[in-house]
Amino acid sequence: MASELNVLALSGGVGGAKLALGLSHELAPENLTIVANTADDFEHIGLWISPDLDTVMYTLAGMNNQEQGWGLADESWNAMSAMERLQGETWFRLGDQDIATHLLRSQWLREGKSITTVTQELCRRLGIQPRLLPMCNAKVTTIVHTDEGDLPFQRYFVGRQCSPVVKGFSFSGIEHAVMSEAVLQTIRQMDAVVVCPSNPFVSVAPILAVEGLKKSLLERSVPRIVVSPIVGGAAIKGPAAKMMKELNMPVNALTVAEYYKDFATHFVLDQQDAHLADAISQLGYSVMQTNTIMKSLDDRCQLARDVLGLLPY
Amino acid sequence: MASELNVLALSGGVGGAKLALGLSHELAPENLTIVANTADDFEHIGLWISPDLDTVMYTLAGMNNQEQGWGLADESWNAMSAMERLQGETWFRLGDQDIATHLLRSQWLREGKSITTVTQELCRRLGIQPRLLPMCNAKVTTIVHTDEGDLPFQRYFVGRQCSPVVKGFSFSGIEHAVMSEAVLQTIRQMDAVVVCPSNPFVSVAPILAVEGLKKSLLERSVPRIVVSPIVGGAAIKGPAAKMMKELNMPVNALTVAEYYKDFATHFVLDQQDAHLADAISQLGYSVMQTNTIMKSLDDRCQLARDVLGLLPY
Repeated sequence: MASELNVLALSGGVGGAKLALGLSHELAPENLTIVANTADDFEHIGLWISPDLDTVMYTLAGMNNQEQGWGLADESWNAMSAMERLQGETWFRLGDQDIATHLLRSQWLREGKSITTVTQELCRRLGIQPRLLPMCNAKVTTIVHTDEGDLPFQRYFVGRQCSPVVKGFSFSGIEHAVMSEAVLQTIRQMDAVVVCPSNPFVSVAPILAVEGLKKSLLERSVPRIVVSPIVGGAAIKGPAAKMMKELNMPVNALTVAEYYKDFATHFVLDQQDAHLADAISQLGYSVMQTNTIMKSLDDRCQLARDVLGLLPY
Repeated sequence: MASELNVLALSGGVGGAKLALGLSHELAPENLTIVANTADDFEHIGLWISPDLDTVMYTLAGMNNQEQGWGLADESWNAMSAMERLQGETWFRLGDQDIATHLLRSQWLREGKSITTVTQELCRRLGIQPRLLPMCNAKVTTIVHTDEGDLPFQRYFVGRQCSPVVKGFSFSGIEHAVMSEAVLQTIRQMDAVVVCPSNPFVSVAPILAVEGLKKSLLERSVPRIVVSPIVGGAAIKGPAAKMMKELNMPVNALTVAEYYKDFATHFVLDQQDAHLADAISQLGYSVMQTNTIMKSLDDRCQLARDVLGLLPY
């Protein structure tokens, strides 16, 4: 059965974390590894912040704020109020509980632990059983090239609320990024790769840009399944659709399929995009249509089951 | 009038801060400098904590928690709850608002700013007008020698709630402590020194142990006034009385007077210790009796006026 196969999921933040949660319900913990983007990470007020790792971690622990989409449920903001009084930086808002995570992570990183070790220890303490791995241990920063100049990702995403017009992306520091032993081992043992419905440009691209990672995935002859983050001409969450438009790409799932065509074997298309199925098939994909909009936990689990149904038994 | 004289106050935490607040009401801001102990400072979860500087700062800003005696009013503890869930260190409890202060201070120190500069900037942002100076820019740590071995101050004070029996004290790092330019300038311009009612062993002694500081104070022929932290055989706050007992010293104001006899010229004795006045006079002090127990803001201001009344007009 599919649940005995080893699945490697590639994830950014919110959308990816939803499917990762579904997969965690459908697979035994030892069969699921999530490799998350860390090119959104940055140092802020002396804290090392890893937004996508935290979103996946909090989601798997059932601690995430579902309405807000990021951060912790039942969060308070008193440190930020005090920071405002002290005229410190408050453009990137850190919740009081969230700060505890950043304090521990930052302390451990300063002590010389790798982000891989730090993440595993945080997950262990939160009782998270599937394995969550950062894409690499090096510090990589997505730079968004815009009509207003180059912006580090969080300055673009949070500071400017994605308003500048995107011209392209680069991943500063990626030249020092190599696969960790943990990622390498996961790739050796995996029976499938699932690209979660995350932003192709700023969530999945950095992961695949880690030296040797994409090649290692391609060398294993296993299904490589993409779940489209674009449904009905819009992104479920985040700036993916806006970015496509600004990069002069048609905003639809076919564009996503074209983006991954040299990498993925299977494409999971939302049922409302059925009209694109043929065109995507012609790119060489096995196409599955289903509901990819994950509003409830049941939706997350159902999509996970649909994805796992693509795997050879 | 007294209020045009420059006063240098030496202070530890709570008790000292109370008199410092009184002095701040009775003197023009440019006439008051408070030099605070920093030998209680320590790094904790990656944050640089300066308990006495913060107590004085929060007190002068009217933001202190008066009931608790330390920390901020209307504080919340959600970061600590999250830290507990993450199985991090929670023995030293940091309030959510307080964390903002530590984050900014730690960031600025890491950027290479001195603790003197950092403190002045924090005070500026909180609208504090009198000058608050750390005793030095070097990192000094009070080590409490106890029957259970040597303990860094906060481990003894907060971690062990002062329960081990004290045998003595040393100030680790004091050999690197020199007076800052700001402290030196204050001493040159001062018309009086007030030793606030702080712990002689762990609050005032470290300040006087900074190289050249005690000598520079003594070289100025100005009144050096000690306000007794021991009243009626007990400390108003903190472990001073317990320490005296364990060091085989009588627990009374006379012991305090003997402790400072080579340094101070004036001794402010609580009225309930009137029976000690003669013995203290015989040590060479000018003795003043008054109410030194500062319950209300009026008490703080009255004691400040009494102290300032000792200065030559």
